Amino acid sequence: MTFSFDIATLRRLYTTGALTPSQLVEELIARLDGEDRHRVWIQRLDADALRGYARALEGQDPASLPLYGVPFAIKDNIDLAGVPTTAGCPAFAYTPTRHATVVQRLLDAGAIPVGKTNLDQFATGLNGTRSPYGACRNAFHPDYISGGSSSGSAVAVALGLVSFALGTDTAGSGRVPAAFNHLIGHKPTCGALSTRGVVPACRSLDQVSIFALTADDAERVLAVAAGFDAEDEYSRPLAPHGFDFGRAASFTFGVPMAKDLEFFGNGEAQRLFGAAVDRMKALGGTPVDIDLAPFLETARLLYGGPWVAERYLAIRDFFEAYPDAVFAPVREIIGGGRRYSAADTFAHLYRLRGLKRVCDAVWDDIDVLLTPTVGTIYRIAEMEADPIRLNANLGHYTNFVNLLDLAATAVPAGFQSDGLPFGVTLIAPAHQDAPLLHLASRLHQALGGTLGATAQPLPPAESLSVLPSGQVRVAVVGAHLSGLPLNAQLTGRGGRLVTATRTAPRYRLYALPDGKRPGLARVASGGAAIACEVWELPLDQFGSFVAGIPAPLGMGQVELADGTLVNGFICEPIGIADARDITAFGGWRAWLAAASTGGA
Amino acid sequence: MTFSFDIATLRRLYTTGALTPSQLVEELIARLDGEDRHRVWIQRLDADALRGYARALEGQDPASLPLYGVPFAIKDNIDLAGVPTTAGCPAFAYTPTRHATVVQRLLDAGAIPVGKTNLDQFATGLNGTRSPYGACRNAFHPDYISGGSSSGSAVAVALGLVSFALGTDTAGSGRVPAAFNHLIGHKPTCGALSTRGVVPACRSLDQVSIFALTADDAERVLAVAAGFDAEDEYSRPLAPHGFDFGRAASFTFGVPMAKDLEFFGNGEAQRLFGAAVDRMKALGGTPVDIDLAPFLETARLLYGGPWVAERYLAIRDFFEAYPDAVFAPVREIIGGGRRYSAADTFAHLYRLRGLKRVCDAVWDDIDVLLTPTVGTIYRIAEMEADPIRLNANLGHYTNFVNLLDLAATAVPAGFQSDGLPFGVTLIAPAHQDAPLLHLASRLHQALGGTLGATAQPLPPAESLSVLPSGQVRVAVVGAHLSGLPLNAQLTGRGGRLVTATRTAPRYRLYALPDGKRPGLARVASGGAAIACEVWELPLDQFGSFVAGIPAPLGMGQVELADGTLVNGFICEPIGIADARDITAFGGWRAWLAAASTGGA
Repeated sequence: MTFSFDIATLRRLYTTGALTPSQLVEELIARLDGEDRHRVWIQRLDADALRGYARALEGQDPASLPLYGVPFAIKDNIDLAGVPTTAGCPAFAYTPTRHATVVQRLLDAGAIPVGKTNLDQFATGLNGTRSPYGACRNAFHPDYISGGSSSGSAVAVALGLVSFALGTDTAGSGRVPAAFNHLIGHKPTCGALSTRGVVPACRSLDQVSIFALTADDAERVLAVAAGFDAEDEYSRPLAPHGFDFGRAASFTFGVPMAKDLEFFGNGEAQRLFGAAVDRMKALGGTPVDIDLAPFLETARLLYGGPWVAERYLAIRDFFEAYPDAVFAPVREIIGGGRRYSAADTFAHLYRLRGLKRVCDAVWDDIDVLLTPTVGTIYRIAEMEADPIRLNANLGHYTNFVNLLDLAATAVPAGFQSDGLPFGVTLIAPAHQDAPLLHLASRLHQALGGTLGATAQPLPPAESLSVLPSGQVRVAVVGAHLSGLPLNAQLTGRGGRLVTATRTAPRYRLYALPDGKRPGLARVASGGAAIACEVWELPLDQFGSFVAGIPAPLGMGQVELADGTLVNGFICEPIGIADARDITAFGGWRAWLAAASTGGA
Repeated sequence: MTFSFDIATLRRLYTTGALTPSQLVEELIARLDGEDRHRVWIQRLDADALRGYARALEGQDPASLPLYGVPFAIKDNIDLAGVPTTAGCPAFAYTPTRHATVVQRLLDAGAIPVGKTNLDQFATGLNGTRSPYGACRNAFHPDYISGGSSSGSAVAVALGLVSFALGTDTAGSGRVPAAFNHLIGHKPTCGALSTRGVVPACRSLDQVSIFALTADDAERVLAVAAGFDAEDEYSRPLAPHGFDFGRAASFTFGVPMAKDLEFFGNGEAQRLFGAAVDRMKALGGTPVDIDLAPFLETARLLYGGPWVAERYLAIRDFFEAYPDAVFAPVREIIGGGRRYSAADTFAHLYRLRGLKRVCDAVWDDIDVLLTPTVGTIYRIAEMEADPIRLNANLGHYTNFVNLLDLAATAVPAGFQSDGLPFGVTLIAPAHQDAPLLHLASRLHQALGGTLGATAQPLPPAESLSVLPSGQVRVAVVGAHLSGLPLNAQLTGRGGRLVTATRTAPRYRLYALPDGKRPGLARVASGGAAIACEVWELPLDQFGSFVAGIPAPLGMGQVELADGTLVNGFICEPIGIADARDITAFGGWRAWLAAASTGGA
C-alpha cells in the first residue's frame, strides 16, 4: 500500500471505504519502522497507542470529523498529555497531564498524534542543529540542515510520515524548515492558535504553526486548530478576512527592492526567486517594489533587543540552576537577555511601534508581500562551525513577521540544481490567513511537482471555505456602476469589482423620476437580463453602505445570469409606479448613453 | 460684565453679537489681573498676545469655528510654540518652535490660549503640591490640595479664568483635580488625542485630558482635539461608539462591592457616593455589584512595576545629569525605575494581559462603571508631610484606567459639609467617549448647582452629535419583533430595542405566502399605520444582518409615525403580488394572534 498522506487523499480514501484508521495506522507503523536516520523524533508513540487512537475512530462517520484519521506530529515544546515535553533539553523535561489547547482541538477533530519531534533547544534557532537529540537532517540530503527550530516536524511531513505537523514560530521556525523541506509552512495570525501548553520562547510573540503538504491541508488544519482560548493571555479570535486576493483574478504583490534582497551568494536561490515572481505575475499579480529597510530594522530588534529577555524569563529558574544543561549557542543567546533593563525595553517597544507604523503603510499599496523564505541553505558542518552568524542569515526575511503582527505562508518554489529545495513566503496583515493560503495554493499549483520529499504528485487544488470570510457580494445596476457618480461609495469602503455580468432574465428596469437612479424589479414573466456589476465589499462596511441608500431603493437579493443569488438593489413598488420602463435598453449605462444623445 | 465662560454661553453671546473676541479678551485680562494666589500659572500670555488672538478672529463668522473665541489653559508639559515648556522643572525647560498637535488643532478651531499651568513635576503625582512654582491651591479652600498632576489646569477652569483646559492623565491626573475642583474631567480613549509635543511621563500610557465646566463643553473640545496623528506612535483614530447608554432610557452600571470601596475614613465622601448611585438609578440605571479586586491589582502595577521605568526613560539624560533639580518625592519615584529589568517588564506585561482579560469580562454585564473619583481629600500640609502614601490613596480608583485601555469621565457629585467638592467617575471601554459624556451630562444635570467654583448656574444640557456614532436604527414589522423567531438576529448582534411605535399612516401590510413573514409596502393613498419596533444596532453588524435577509424582503427606509425616516424592511413588488393584505389587523403580531385563533 503506497499512498500520499495529504489530507485530501486520506479523506477520499476514508469516505469511499478504501481505507480505515486501523489500516492507516498499520501503514504508519510500517513507515516509522527502522532507524530514525533524520533525527526527526524525540519520542514516538508506540504501536499500541497508535492502534488505540485508530480503534476509537472505527465506526464513526469519516465525514463527521474534519481530521478523521489524519496522523500528525507535534513539536516537542507542545504538550501531549502523558508524554514528556522536553523542549529539546532532557534536564528540563516534564510530563504534562493535560494536552495543549491546540492539540486537544486536533484530537477532538479526529487527528491521530504520532509523536513529539526534534527541535532547536527551547525553540531558539532557525537551523535544526541545536539539539542534544542530534542535528536534524534535511529530508533531501542528510548533510544539509533541516532548518529549525521546528526541525523534526517539518522533516516528518516531508518524508510522508505524517499528514501535517505542529511547529512553533517566533522568529521563523515555522517557515524556514518548510522552505528547506519543500513544504507549506503556515505561520498563522498572532493569537489565532492558543499557546496554552506550549513552552514559551518569547511569550509575547510565539505562535503555533502548521506544516503541511498542501495549502488546502494547512487551511483545513488551521480551521480546526484556531480558536480563542481564555487561558492564553495572547489569544484572540481569528477575525473574518478581507479581500480574498488569493482567489482574485488580479491583485498586487510587493517584491523587495534589489538592495534588500539577500541570497548570501546563492545565485540559484536568486534565480528561483525570480521564477516565483514570474509565477505570481502569471496568476494575475502586479508587482510593486517595496523598500524592505524598515522591515529589516524591525527584524534586527528580535535578537538585538530586549525580546531575548523573554527567552530568559521563560526558563529563568532552570537556567540559573542548570546553565550547563543548555546548549552552548542557546545559552549564549538566552543569557544575553539578562543585560536589558526595563527602560531599554520600553525604548524598544516605542521604536517597534514607530517601525510598525512605517511598515503598515505598505498595505495601502499591496495585497501581499512576496519574499524568499530564506536566502540560502547551509551544511550541518558549516552551521556548527559558525552557529550564531549563519543562523542570523536564515532569519533575514522571517524575523520581522511576528513583531509586526503579520501572517505568513511559506510555499515551495522549486529546486536548486543540487536537488535542494527553495521556498518563498507570502506575507499579509493579521487575519488574512485564508487569502494567504488560497494564494499559496495557486502558487503551489503553478509550480506543480511532488509533495515534500515524497514521490507523490501534488493533488489538484480544492476550493475550501472553512475559514470565516468577511466579504459580501453586491450586484449594482445603476449609479454605483464603475465610473458613475455613486461608485465611490463602493471603492471608498474597500470594495473591489468582481465581475461585470447580467442578471437572470427575470427583471425589468425603470428610470426613477429623479433621473439619477434606476429601479430593478423582478417579474414573474416578461423579464429581461439587465447589465450589472458584482462588487465585493467588507461585511463590516456593508452596513453603512446600506444605511445610506435613500428610498425607494433598498438592499435585497438579485439573481444573476448564472443562477446565483447575491445581495443587490431592489425597489419598493411605489418607486416604479410612475417610472419609465427602460428594460429595452438592457441596462442603466446604455439608457444614460441613449438619453444623452437624445435617443431615449 | 459677568458671564460664564462655559462654551455654550460664549457661543450664544458670540452668535447673537452680544460679545466679540476682543471684548472677551478684555474680560479675561481683568479676571487674570492681580496675584496668582492659587499658584495656577507657570506662564501667562501677556495682554498683547491675547489681544492678537482676538483680533485674528474679528470678522470671522462665529459659526464657522467650533471653538471661536474660547479661552483655554495648557498644562505646562504640553507645547505652545514660543513659550517655555517646563514640565514643572525650571532646569528642564525648553522653548518649542512648534505647537503640540492637540494645541494646534484647538487653535485652528478658534480657541485662544491663555497660558501654561502649574503641575506636579514631570506629571508625577496626583496631588498638586510637587511643584517648585508652589503647591497649587484648591479652588474652594486654599489650605487644601488642588489635586494633580494637572493642578493649575483644573483650578483655572474652576475659577472661571478659562473655558476649558488641557491636562494630561497617566494615573488619574485628569480626573483627581476635576473631583477636587467640582469639574468635568474627561480622560479620553487612549490614543484619541495626540501626545506629539507632550513631555512623556509613561509614554505607553499618557493621555491628554480635558477639564471643562460641563460635559457638553468637554464633548465639543474632544471632537476638535481628537484625531489620528502619524507622528505619535500611540495615536489611533477614535472609532465610532457603541450603544449610547448615556442617552438610553435604561442602562446598567457597575458599583464596586463594599469591600473595595475605600474612603480613607471620610464618611461624607461615602454618603455623597451613595447619593450619586441614587442619581444614576433615577436616570434609569440598574446597579450591578462589581468585584473591583482585579482592577485594584492592575492599579498597583502602575507604581509597583516597571512602568515607572518609562518615567525614568523619558528624562534619563537630564535625570542622571541633574538629580538635584528634581523634587524629592518625584526623584524617589523616577529613580526607582532604574531597578527593573527587561525580564521584570515582560513578566508584568503578561500579568497585565491576564488581568485585562479578567477585568474586560465585566463589560458583558454592565454598560458603565461608577466609582468615586477619589476617596478623600487632604490639606496641603498633610500631603507634604506624607507625600508618597497619601498620594497613593488618591489613585485608588484611577490608576487602572489607562493600563486597561478604558475611557473615563469625572463628574461633580456634590459637596461635603465643609464646602469641599466630591466627585464620581464614569468608566467604560475604549471609544465610548460619547456615551460617557452624554451620561456625565445627565448626571451633572441631576445634581444641578453651579459651575466649578464660580457662582454661575449649570446651563441646560444640549444634545450634541459631534462625535462619530456607530449605531443604526432599524424598523422591524415582522418576525424580528421582540419575542418572535428572528428577533435573535438583532439581539445576537448587540441590538437594543429603542421603542415600539407605528409607521406613518402610508403603508399596507401583506402576509407572504411562506406564512412566516410580512411584506410592508408604502402606498400613495389608502395606507395605514402599522405596528413596528425600532431597534438600534451597531453599524458594523448591520451588514451581516442585511446580507442574511432572503428575497423578496430587503432593507430600505421606512417612515415612522413621527415623520422620521429610519432603515426598515421593504418588499419587492413581486413579493406582494399574490400575498394576502392584512393591513386591517394593524400589525404582524395582531395577525399572528388572529390566525392562531382562527380569527383570520
